[in-house]
Amino acid sequence: MTLIKFSSLDNERKTNPTLKGHKLVFITPWEPNTDYIDSLQKQFPDLVIECHKSEWRAPGTGAGESPFPIEQWKDVTIALTFTYLPQPKDAPKLQYVQLISAGANHILDHPLFKETEVEFCTANGVHGPQISEWLLLTYLAFNHHLPHYLSLQQQAHWSRDKSDSIQDATAKTVGILGYGAIGRQTARLAVAMGMNVHAFTLHPRPTPESRKDRSWAPSGMGDPEGIFPSKWFSGSSKEDLHTFLRSGLDLLVVSTPLTPGTKHLLGKEEFALLYEASPTVKVVDEETGKLEERGRTFVSNIARGPVVDTDELIEALEKGWIRGAALDVTDPEPLPDGHRLWKTKNVIVTPHVSGASTRYNERVLAILEENLGRVGRGERLVNGVSRREGY
Amino acid sequence: MTLIKFSSLDNERKTNPTLKGHKLVFITPWEPNTDYIDSLQKQFPDLVIECHKSEWRAPGTGAGESPFPIEQWKDVTIALTFTYLPQPKDAPKLQYVQLISAGANHILDHPLFKETEVEFCTANGVHGPQISEWLLLTYLAFNHHLPHYLSLQQQAHWSRDKSDSIQDATAKTVGILGYGAIGRQTARLAVAMGMNVHAFTLHPRPTPESRKDRSWAPSGMGDPEGIFPSKWFSGSSKEDLHTFLRSGLDLLVVSTPLTPGTKHLLGKEEFALLYEASPTVKVVDEETGKLEERGRTFVSNIARGPVVDTDELIEALEKGWIRGAALDVTDPEPLPDGHRLWKTKNVIVTPHVSGASTRYNERVLAILEENLGRVGRGERLVNGVSRREGY
Repeated sequence: MTLIKFSSLDNERKTNPTLKGHKLVFITPWEPNTDYIDSLQKQFPDLVIECHKSEWRAPGTGAGESPFPIEQWKDVTIALTFTYLPQPKDAPKLQYVQLISAGANHILDHPLFKETEVEFCTANGVHGPQISEWLLLTYLAFNHHLPHYLSLQQQAHWSRDKSDSIQDATAKTVGILGYGAIGRQTARLAVAMGMNVHAFTLHPRPTPESRKDRSWAPSGMGDPEGIFPSKWFSGSSKEDLHTFLRSGLDLLVVSTPLTPGTKHLLGKEEFALLYEASPTVKVVDEETGKLEERGRTFVSNIARGPVVDTDELIEALEKGWIRGAALDVTDPEPLPDGHRLWKTKNVIVTPHVSGASTRYNERVLAILEENLGRVGRGERLVNGVSRREGY
Repeated sequence: MTLIKFSSLDNERKTNPTLKGHKLVFITPWEPNTDYIDSLQKQFPDLVIECHKSEWRAPGTGAGESPFPIEQWKDVTIALTFTYLPQPKDAPKLQYVQLISAGANHILDHPLFKETEVEFCTANGVHGPQISEWLLLTYLAFNHHLPHYLSLQQQAHWSRDKSDSIQDATAKTVGILGYGAIGRQTARLAVAMGMNVHAFTLHPRPTPESRKDRSWAPSGMGDPEGIFPSKWFSGSSKEDLHTFLRSGLDLLVVSTPLTPGTKHLLGKEEFALLYEASPTVKVVDEETGKLEERGRTFVSNIARGPVVDTDELIEALEKGWIRGAALDVTDPEPLPDGHRLWKTKNVIVTPHVSGASTRYNERVLAILEENLGRVGRGERLVNGVSRREGY
């Protein structure tokens, strides 16, 4: 198998990547824009490009079938795909797989990842804008009682009830568990709204240099320099996590990758700790209309469902240990019709749509284009998945 | 009547405001916090302070009654109030009225405003955080189909339908009609989300100095220097307004005060112009599920209902001249039960709650406190209502 030769990152040398002998296959649930393919072909005239349409599949629901005969994988050197991956023996020339998801957990057990040195890159960074919008949207919707007012609108009835308890975000604190592309853009929005930001990362970030983020981000967005957090936390132990959770959080954003180390990262112990760490807040219960004491923290999960223990989250919501929750990902997923989480109080559940955006594809393709140039120049790719960390 | 002597603004001279001989009455729908009153009394030991509770009233629903006997107005020099104002003859010593609303339109016809030189100050600036949040919340809710997903949640059903048409805000343009405290904080959020900002003001702002805003704002928020807009528009003629509306707007924020000059500022002509000025967008209609062509602009009104012609807005929504609308204020207001606006397609209506915040009062009191100091020192008050402009 031909391996990519890594050289030092050099932005000045972005010329004449030939990609002669390379074959790129698109296996995407959307048809790539023909203008884009034309422009790619113009940039890389020797590159053979093939487009194949696949069905969209939720992670964990299987990888699907190869959209073309297995024997045709033998010449493929580069693949853009979401779930389907060939077996190592069928794709001996494969060098670089560009995933169209930000997470890589669904491929960690695949032989192509475990047994080869094929470079896997995520679409890390393409989700920052829309997922940070979803996070703020659901948090603001909860604080401004939007679900209630939408329901009054359906009844065609004007009433300012509940307006006394509308909270704005100024001076509140958001804790971001996993300060990557999504967390960094969320921090940008939070700071604009007058919030404080506490960041949690796996590895310590004690210096300005260590706080930088080199993964792909749309220009002018995110926090590439790492300037927004007022406090940084880090570690891989429960104790490290608990120190962070005790720091006085109004909003806890779960934006950590799903790895064996992050499965059920948040469970009963953590919700109890959030409850005990801060004074409770008085809120009017949506159903009873009565004032009740509730934990301070609103928990928002846009990572992967299993990072949170579903049963223990439901218990925490029912007991008022947390103020509320917004979940775009659940465990199980898809959340079965009628599952009790749907009706648990103080929760907003959406069907894994926070990462959706009509601009998604253009961002994935921008990453692919960047990496094709790097393959041609023999440079280190952006957004590579570490085999040690699993993301 | 004793008038306030204006001197030049001098922040260094904030010492020893005695306020001897002054009497301040609170006429508020909420009980002022006793800690606040104590701290105010400590700052201004000679000031006589009286607190009176009033009912909350929507603007335009009458001023209510004096919460204490009329003859007791004779010694009052300062009043904090929302709607109730005494007659000039009953309050001969009144110097300064601090309104708890950002708008002053409901007092413009009162003899105390028209026939005296009593200084009226608005609560301009206290609304920036929560109303900018409401604006982004409703815009994002529309773009991310939140009402639809909330409805699926109520049905306890997981479906990613409509996720293909979720739009994020990057590279979109917001036009802000009335670039005051609310508009400026909205611009801060919009820029953080990757949007472009076009600002419209009554008076031209050709220089960096003229783009500054001297009214009250929470520290670190808003746009006091006027740096966020990429384009500035201004004027008082229809033509000026139309030039702004033609500038390619994805979101139009109506945040202009209601004055005789802004009544029905947006009507059929303006909606038609928005439709014609930009290429249409293809959207899936919520009800029919069919792809339809619609105007590019989403219109959001948090100013006052009559700034927009309601019937002509409904027509524009029905014809698809605009992409959608979010209205926190309506004409008539309260919007009668069953009014056809409630069921008009592509509109979110909330019952005048965008300005509500549990932090509202502390911000109003911060302005009052600032102005009490200025009264004592004979300085120009912040947020004074211009008798020429009516805001």
